[in-house]
Order: sequence, then structure tokens, then C-alpha cells
Amino acid sequence: MELLKNLISYHDAKNIVFNNLDKLINSKYKTISVLNSLNKISFEDIKAPTDLPMFNKSAMDGYAIIAEDTFGASENNPIILNLVEGDEISSEECIKVCTGMPIPKGANAVVMKEYCNEEDNFLEVRWSSYPNENISRIGEDIKKGETILKKGETINPYHIALLLSLGIKDIKVMDLKIGLISTGDELIDIEDLKDIQQLKNQHKIVNSNTPMLSALINETGLTPNIYKLVKDNEEEIKNILLNALNENDIIFTTGGTSVGDRDYTIKVINDLCSMELHGVQIRPGKPFGFAKYKTNEGEEKLIFILSGYPVAGAVQFELFFRNYFKPRKYLYLPLNRNIASTLGRTDILRLKFVETNNNNKKSAVEPLKITGSGVLSSIAKADCYTIIGENIEGYEKGEVIKVYIL
Amino acid sequence: MELLKNLISYHDAKNIVFNNLDKLINSKYKTISVLNSLNKISFEDIKAPTDLPMFNKSAMDGYAIIAEDTFGASENNPIILNLVEGDEISSEECIKVCTGMPIPKGANAVVMKEYCNEEDNFLEVRWSSYPNENISRIGEDIKKGETILKKGETINPYHIALLLSLGIKDIKVMDLKIGLISTGDELIDIEDLKDIQQLKNQHKIVNSNTPMLSALINETGLTPNIYKLVKDNEEEIKNILLNALNENDIIFTTGGTSVGDRDYTIKVINDLCSMELHGVQIRPGKPFGFAKYKTNEGEEKLIFILSGYPVAGAVQFELFFRNYFKPRKYLYLPLNRNIASTLGRTDILRLKFVETNNNNKKSAVEPLKITGSGVLSSIAKADCYTIIGENIEGYEKGEVIKVYIL
Repeated sequence: MELLKNLISYHDAKNIVFNNLDKLINSKYKTISVLNSLNKISFEDIKAPTDLPMFNKSAMDGYAIIAEDTFGASENNPIILNLVEGDEISSEECIKVCTGMPIPKGANAVVMKEYCNEEDNFLEVRWSSYPNENISRIGEDIKKGETILKKGETINPYHIALLLSLGIKDIKVMDLKIGLISTGDELIDIEDLKDIQQLKNQHKIVNSNTPMLSALINETGLTPNIYKLVKDNEEEIKNILLNALNENDIIFTTGGTSVGDRDYTIKVINDLCSMELHGVQIRPGKPFGFAKYKTNEGEEKLIFILSGYPVAGAVQFELFFRNYFKPRKYLYLPLNRNIASTLGRTDILRLKFVETNNNNKKSAVEPLKITGSGVLSSIAKADCYTIIGENIEGYEKGEVIKVYIL
Repeated sequence: MELLKNLISYHDAKNIVFNNLDKLINSKYKTISVLNSLNKISFEDIKAPTDLPMFNKSAMDGYAIIAEDTFGASENNPIILNLVEGDEISSEECIKVCTGMPIPKGANAVVMKEYCNEEDNFLEVRWSSYPNENISRIGEDIKKGETILKKGETINPYHIALLLSLGIKDIKVMDLKIGLISTGDELIDIEDLKDIQQLKNQHKIVNSNTPMLSALINETGLTPNIYKLVKDNEEEIKNILLNALNENDIIFTTGGTSVGDRDYTIKVINDLCSMELHGVQIRPGKPFGFAKYKTNEGEEKLIFILSGYPVAGAVQFELFFRNYFKPRKYLYLPLNRNIASTLGRTDILRLKFVETNNNNKKSAVEPLKITGSGVLSSIAKADCYTIIGENIEGYEKGEVIKVYIL
């Protein structure tokens, strides 16, 4: 493949990557305890194996009654019921219940104890109950068979509570082995840095890509294997790449992705693998590459070739990986500035939420200062981003655009 | 304090809790490696100790030139420069540079190698450069002294990259010891559950509160200590509570928070501690309690007394804890339904994002089915929530409301 010569559209690039991910993840799961499943991606649809509650139960501390017995009761006109024990009541009887207890047979409501006076074997009730009042009914929270978690969904704290409530102990979650490789003679790992002056004197840059990507992958509910920083040396890159391909399902490389004299990463990948694409009409993030590698056993591995520029790399990660596994929620909001874009190129623009305050507050979005792909500080402050299609020359102030919430 | 008799407003409750948190967290931090700081809460303002880039550097692979030398150059009208080596150029000279390399003295632009032909000691340039083209200038990404992270902010992957780029290895983050105690005879831990029928036969409920709260606390960037499930037994509750107070800064209890016969938790806390509030005019979440405990050494510990109902407990956690440490982003969006509320009470309503599609797409919010505080499935599906103040009777369709993004 001729590198960076045939730039393809964002749409086509996304299709190539996502189709390959579809194939890869087919059998990549592990079963873990629900207790450890926070932020993981479910690998199965889960349907409720039972109604919840499983029986009618009291939602309050009070007395199980027959609602009709209390009709007309009030502060000034209390009625008297017989207080009994057991698990069944008849007309004009009641049984004391605590929150969560099953409703005795015959009863159809619970009157809160605040509205009652208990005396010996009698109960004075100063409240007119209605049928089902203060009863959590079978299936009220979840109906048997209802889907409570879909394959591909990220598991949140409420899902954990739901799954456990239904007696579900274990869950299949996405399990991908992901290797991270950063290359570049100009890079230095933070552990090896003595002081800031070292950066200036030796013209070095701290390797921020590996830790950033590691954090981004963690946020996606997956865990990366981090390989040691590689110099711009073809042999060294080849060895570490082959090793990483052997140990992982997916590799991310950063740096050496252009076609400069020192861009060995792309050269090595091009030699070893089938390059599926190199160069996408997006900004930032143009020199994105994507390749496939077939092991001797016929297993396919995927390689995401990211820019060494952190913002470009972050955008490439967002568009081609994060959005597959954990798509962002989006909204349509008005712009409070004009923005320009270039025909034939998809622009990814970071924005923040702002309030317009004429008579009533309304939300709008405002672009963060648009600058080079190195400008990390802007991405750290963004609330959302928008993807400006290749056929769009820009938007005018007031136009409503689709934004993805970060 | 008379329990659940003097319900206070959401506003007052929040002030009491947040003021106490302000005092407590004063000295609660630890220093950790930036590499491990994802999702933690920064305990310090961090200002950039240096400009970034620290020196003018090339943003491209190409040739460092004097822009003025190339004025008028084009595909049909190339100009010729002398290709030299070293770290300085004069008029009509150029030096080859790779991305990230320092700009030689005298040069003021980099022309991309795509627009050049290198021949022996000469360079043919087919591009008219402008000053500073393809140069990342000192301080372009970050200016020395600029605040890059504020105390209280949650550290995201981009912050990690920024901090490391600036040579910052360690960071002070919030460090609170948090104990979780759940009580209730009706509860069973998931580990002890044999099968679902056991729940029905023994009228048991799986303890979902502890794992849910544990996950919520993890999402807040803190780590809980989980205590074993406690029966409704006053002595047992007292022992475990005293033990937990000794080992933690903050305790969360769930269950036993009302004033029923089995509500020993609140009784024990009321005996041992100074009860700051019990009962808030909110729905769901009314029986929220908050107490202070003073150790023999004079240290103050805080106790958050949450409902046993998972949704009520989740809302109480959100309003009185999560919002302190990690406030949600909010937006003003129109409602696509009428909603009713009750005067004198603050309602917390879960909503989802919807699209209205007349001529142009717009975003609106729609309430999820409003049901009892036990209905966890609704909270798991919510995109956002709104807080309906105690003076508001409801909203009409089309009104713009403030929503907090989940």
C-alpha cells in the first residue's frame, strides 16, 4: 500500500475498522463476578430470571389491612381493627408488618404506623387507605423476562444492584488483550526523567501517549498491556511488535506513523501486516493507520496506528475505538459562534457548554480555541465535541448541531 | 433529636452536609504517581512549571527555512535553497528537520518535505511559506504559570498526559477512608445465595446496596472499606459501627434508617453520635440522616445514613456526596411532557434525552416513568436528572429546565 497517498473518508475508515472489530470480538469474553463488573462491557443480553419483587411486600412499616375496612377513616373519625398474628387476615383484622415483609393473605394495603395507635389487641386507624397502598407488588420493579442489560452496554452501579437483586452472580464481559507500544527517539518515560531542564537540554519530550492511552482504554472498560518505550530503530520495533502481536488481540502504536525518514513503525507494520488503511480525511488525526496481522495459527490481530501528537492520537482513539465499544451520548444544541470547516475533510471540533441568558436560560455550545493537534489543554477542558462532515463548509451562529458528550 | 419529625429542606440539608465535608477534607490527601491518578480528585491547584513546548520545534517532517526566501514559490515556479547542516541558517539556506526537532537559529518556518525535492546540497521548494508555518512555538500548548488542574477537579486521561508532558510525576489527591455498613435481617449477601428460590421461600432480598454504593464511591474516585452485613441487632450494629468509625473518616449506613421497631441503625447512631439532621423534604430519599461522631482524640467522623431502598439510597448519595466531590455537568433543555411536583418538597426526577423532529432536530428531555423508590430499572436507564425546587408545582411541556447529566 502506498502510505498516506490515498486518504479515505472518515465514513469509509470507520466502516473498515468497525467491520474488523465485529469479527474480532466474536469470542472475546470472560466470565467475572458481578461484584467486579463496574464499567465493564457486557458480552450478553441479560433478561430478568424472575419478577422483582418476587412477592407482594410492604413498602412501609405499618399494618397490613383490607383497604375497604378503612374507607372514611380520618384524624377525627378513626376506625378500630382487630390486631392479629399469623399470615392471613379476614374482614376488620390487621397484622403488623415491617418494610420488606410479605403481605399476609387477605390484605390489600398497608397503613403507615404514623396513622395508627396500637392498644392491646386493637388498632386505631386514622387514615383512609386505598387498595395496593404501600404495597410493592410482584414484578413492580422488574418483570420476569424483561431485558435489564444489553450486550455491548457498559455496566453501571445501578446495573450491579439490579443484577444482584435478581440473584445473578456472574456475568460475561468483553475481554480483549490490548498492547500499547510507543516509539520515538525524542521520548523519555516519566520514570527516567530527572528534572524539567533535562527536557530542554536534550530536546526530549515526556512519553505522555502511553499513559494517556492506557487511561482511555481503562475508561472503556478494558485493560492494556504496556510495552517499554521503543527507539526509532527498525529491528527493535519489529521485535517488540511481533512479541506484542503474539500476546494480544489488538495493538496500539503511537508515533512513527507518518512517512518521514524516522517513521519506522509504519514501515515495519507495512512489511509484516496487511495495511487496511493509512491516512484519513479528518482533522486532527489524518495519519491514522489500521492493519491486520495473521498469526501462523491463522488468528487475526488488529493494529491501530496512532499519531504521536497526543490530541491527534486521542481523537483517533475516540473515533475508531472508544465509539465502537462505548459510544458517547449526543445532543442537538445551538452554536453561539460561527464555525468554518473545509470541504472534503471531516473536522472534529471540541466545544464547551455555555448558557445564553436572554429572558430564559438556554444551553448552547461554543468551540474551544481551535489550534494545532498538539494542544492538549483544550481537550482536557472540553465538554463535548462535534463531527463536521466532509460536505459541510461550516455552521452559522444559532444553527443546531449534534454534539457528543464527553 | 426527634427522628423524622423535623424534616428540613433540601437546601438546608445540603448546607449542613457540605459544611461538614469542607471541615473534614481539610487534611485528607495522599501523594500518588500521576500514572495512577485516573479519576482521582486533585487536592491541589497545579500550575505549569514551564512553557510547553519548551523550545520552538518543527511540527512536520521537512526543512527549516526563512519564509521570506520562498515568497512566490509554487509548483510551476520552484525556488532553490542551499541545504546545510548544523543548528543555524542564513539567507537562502535550509536544514532538514523531523517532527519535534528544535528549529535552527535564523529559521522561521518549516516547509513540508512533500513540497520539496532534495538534490545533493540543494533543495527545490515548490511552496510559498509564511513565517511560523509548521512551527510549534514556545508556550503554544501551555504557558508557564497557567493553571492546568484545579483543586477538586477529577483527573482525566488528558490531564494525565498534560501533567506528564510538564514533567510532573506525583500529585496530591483526595484520600478519604470510607466505611460501608448495610443492615437488615431480610438481606442476604450474593456470596451466600444458593438460588433464586431461596429468596422467595425465605422472603430474603439480596444485599445490592453495599455493592451499588461501593461502585458509586469508586466512580467518585474514592475507595470504600466494606463491612460484613449486619443483622437487625442493636448490640451487633453498635459494635460494628464503633469499629468502623475508628477505622474510617466517613461511614455510610444503609437500611434501618426509618423509625420502625427494627430500625436499630438510626437508634444506635442517635445514641452514639450527634445527629445533625434526620429527614429531608426530598423525594425520593426522605429518610436521609447525617450525624457526627467525636472520637476520644477529638477527631470528627461523619455518618451518612442512607435508605435501604436502592433508588432512595442512590439519590441521597448523589445529592449529598457525589455532588460535593464530583458535581455533574448540567444543561438547560426543554421538556417534552408536563410534569407535576408537590409544593414544599424537592423532587428528583430522572429523565432521558429525546429528539424532537419538526424541521430540524432538537434535543429535549422526557421523564422516565415516575414510580416508587424501589424502581432501580429506571435509574439505570436515565440520561440525566432534574431537581424540582420546593416552590415549584411542576413544569409545562416546552419549558426549559436544568438537567444534570449522568
